[in-house]
Amino acid sequence: MSSLGTPDPHPGWLSEEDLTHVRHRLPLLYVEAIPVRQAEDGTVSEVGMLLRADAGGTFKRTIVSGRVLYAETVRAALLRHLEKDLGPMAFPRLPACPTPFTVAEYFPLPGLGRFSDERQHAVSLVFVVPVTGRCDPRQDALELTWLSPAEAVSAPVTDELEGGRGALIRMAMAHVGALD
Amino acid sequence: MSSLGTPDPHPGWLSEEDLTHVRHRLPLLYVEAIPVRQAEDGTVSEVGMLLRADAGGTFKRTIVSGRVLYAETVRAALLRHLEKDLGPMAFPRLPACPTPFTVAEYFPLPGLGRFSDERQHAVSLVFVVPVTGRCDPRQDALELTWLSPAEAVSAPVTDELEGGRGALIRMAMAHVGALD
Amino acid sequence: MSSLGTPDPHPGWLSEEDLTHVRHRLPLLYVEAIPVRQAEDGTVSEVGMLLRADAGGTFKRTIVSGRVLYAETVRAALLRHLEKDLGPMAFPRLPACPTPFTVAEYFPLPGLGRFSDERQHAVSLVFVVPVTGRCDPRQDALELTWLSPAEAVSAPVTDELEGGRGALIRMAMAHVGALD
Amino acid sequence: MSSLGTPDPHPGWLSEEDLTHVRHRLPLLYVEAIPVRQAEDGTVSEVGMLLRADAGGTFKRTIVSGRVLYAETVRAALLRHLEKDLGPMAFPRLPACPTPFTVAEYFPLPGLGRFSDERQHAVSLVFVVPVTGRCDPRQDALELTWLSPAEAVSAPVTDELEGGRGALIRMAMAHVGALD
Repeated sequence: MSSLGTPDPHPGWLSEEDLTHVRHRLPLLYVEAIPVRQAEDGTVSEVGMLLRADAGGTFKRTIVSGRVLYAETVRAALLRHLEKDLGPMAFPRLPACPTPFTVAEYFPLPGLGRFSDERQHAVSLVFVVPVTGRCDPRQDALELTWLSPAEAVSAPVTDELEGGRGALIRMAMAHVGALD
Repeated sequence: MSSLGTPDPHPGWLSEEDLTHVRHRLPLLYVEAIPVRQAEDGTVSEVGMLLRADAGGTFKRTIVSGRVLYAETVRAALLRHLEKDLGPMAFPRLPACPTPFTVAEYFPLPGLGRFSDERQHAVSLVFVVPVTGRCDPRQDALELTWLSPAEAVSAPVTDELEGGRGALIRMAMAHVGALD
Repeated sequence: MSSLGTPDPHPGWLSEEDLTHVRHRLPLLYVEAIPVRQAEDGTVSEVGMLLRADAGGTFKRTIVSGRVLYAETVRAALLRHLEKDLGPMAFPRLPACPTPFTVAEYFPLPGLGRFSDERQHAVSLVFVVPVTGRCDPRQDALELTWLSPAEAVSAPVTDELEGGRGALIRMAMAHVGALD
Repeated sequence: MSSLGTPDPHPGWLSEEDLTHVRHRLPLLYVEAIPVRQAEDGTVSEVGMLLRADAGGTFKRTIVSGRVLYAETVRAALLRHLEKDLGPMAFPRLPACPTPFTVAEYFPLPGLGRFSDERQHAVSLVFVVPVTGRCDPRQDALELTWLSPAEAVSAPVTDELEGGRGALIRMAMAHVGALD
């Protein structure tokens, strides 16, 4: 890490080493999005979930998720991660209101909250985002599966979600009036 | 009004006379929508306002507004009034979440609240609704004007809004993060 | 129902007969409240449910619920029904924000929505209301029981709730971050 | 900054030097609270603002504000900063719902958003928090002043708020239905 005396050669840029260091010293800010499809009257008809292989080769379900960078707005971070995870033709409809439907807190240690992330303390602004185009997962995601709201909150599905995000899907479905 | 003893010949239908009667005895349920246009990242770029001539021939600005009917869902009422006021090609994007951003209470008498409606006590579920198509006002509305958020909350505009709805536009712009 | 020609002798007042008539012609506006107790940091620790005997003598669980009257504000109606159902010493903390966490739609016929009320079409603004005092149910409610959030959303409890309100309790717990 | 090879002697603790370094590389997570007093029916009657002298000795108005620490929940951070800024007898009523009414983004450079903080990129979860006790500002705050909602959003007051927070007060008053 640069000393304070020298001018900063890389403002806005954090090395992998620095990031590892701060992951155990600061809460990191994330955005997350639960992609949905809507009927004409706005009701949520389907929920999109990503399938991803973790470092050990195990398949896990997840949602669109990523860090907010220095000097990046929350809206820009949301757009960037939606495109990264769903491809350029997903045509997400970002909400007019910039307030997340909930804030999810991920802790590396048990007992502090119900969401967990062994790498870090992350605080995530979570949005439900309708998508109208074709989703074409990129990067390390293998597949996007569309499920009905009832399937999305069923135990076989929520048990496969990383970090306790099953509760997040239930909260999202409650928020949009699709949780029975 | 039908007596209780006879089977009801017109369930779900309220005569003009009955409606006039209940307007002074019950709060009537309304839905209202403030049409907006969005930039790609979801920020509100424009606000749509209707121009309408009232009974006395005076022009007043207003928003999409109408009653929820018997056995009609809030979403269906919202769609119906959006189509009635903006035409069939407006392609409104109804929200995934069915909760209004605010509830506006209109009273026929001064002193009870800040919104007024001389005809009745009305309680309105108010939504901000992005529209993506072409708006073609029908019925008694003469014109839909698109204004920037700053213009929409300026005194010359809000003073022309019926029933104190200027405050509603300011609340909507605050809600979407577009009120300076 | 009074004829239009004669001055209205009882503005703001609806006879039982008139009410029965309009119940099948208009959606009626209700407020509902789910009483909760909070820990010091605001998390919901307990949920209050009323036990009530219905017309047939069957015990049913329910929440605070009642009609908004003519010329009554939503806040005043909420206070009035909280006092009616929880007694004068409950000391409810009404929210600063007047927007309900959800809008519940009750229909007399199946298929229109998930909440039902055989008497009428009712649209209800639903609030989570912390209470800090002693609850002493009055009127026809027999008892107020405090349950943990987990108990409140368990099947044995939600199955006893009238009109499908089990889903409403789950939505409320999701809203306050207490649904696992 | 400690090298990665050596065991971390101070997990969860960030030196002043490290903090200065990351302030230009990561968005920092803050919580902010606008203290209010409520009438019995929940309407906001007064808004609390802090008066603080900045480094140059100029007096500025501000609100309750502070960083979320590593392994600290958002609720705990909110409680800690409320006590730090309002004293131990303020008795804040933390919301049952953990979602902020808005997310404010502060940037060190102009043009990215409307809130500014020359020290850093900060993202703040903002809450309206009713307080029921006696406020006794501590630390560097000199005074807490209670203003009516109308005074709180008037230009003489909002112009004295740091970082563009005048817009935040207007958003808060719109949220609670107290912005005309």
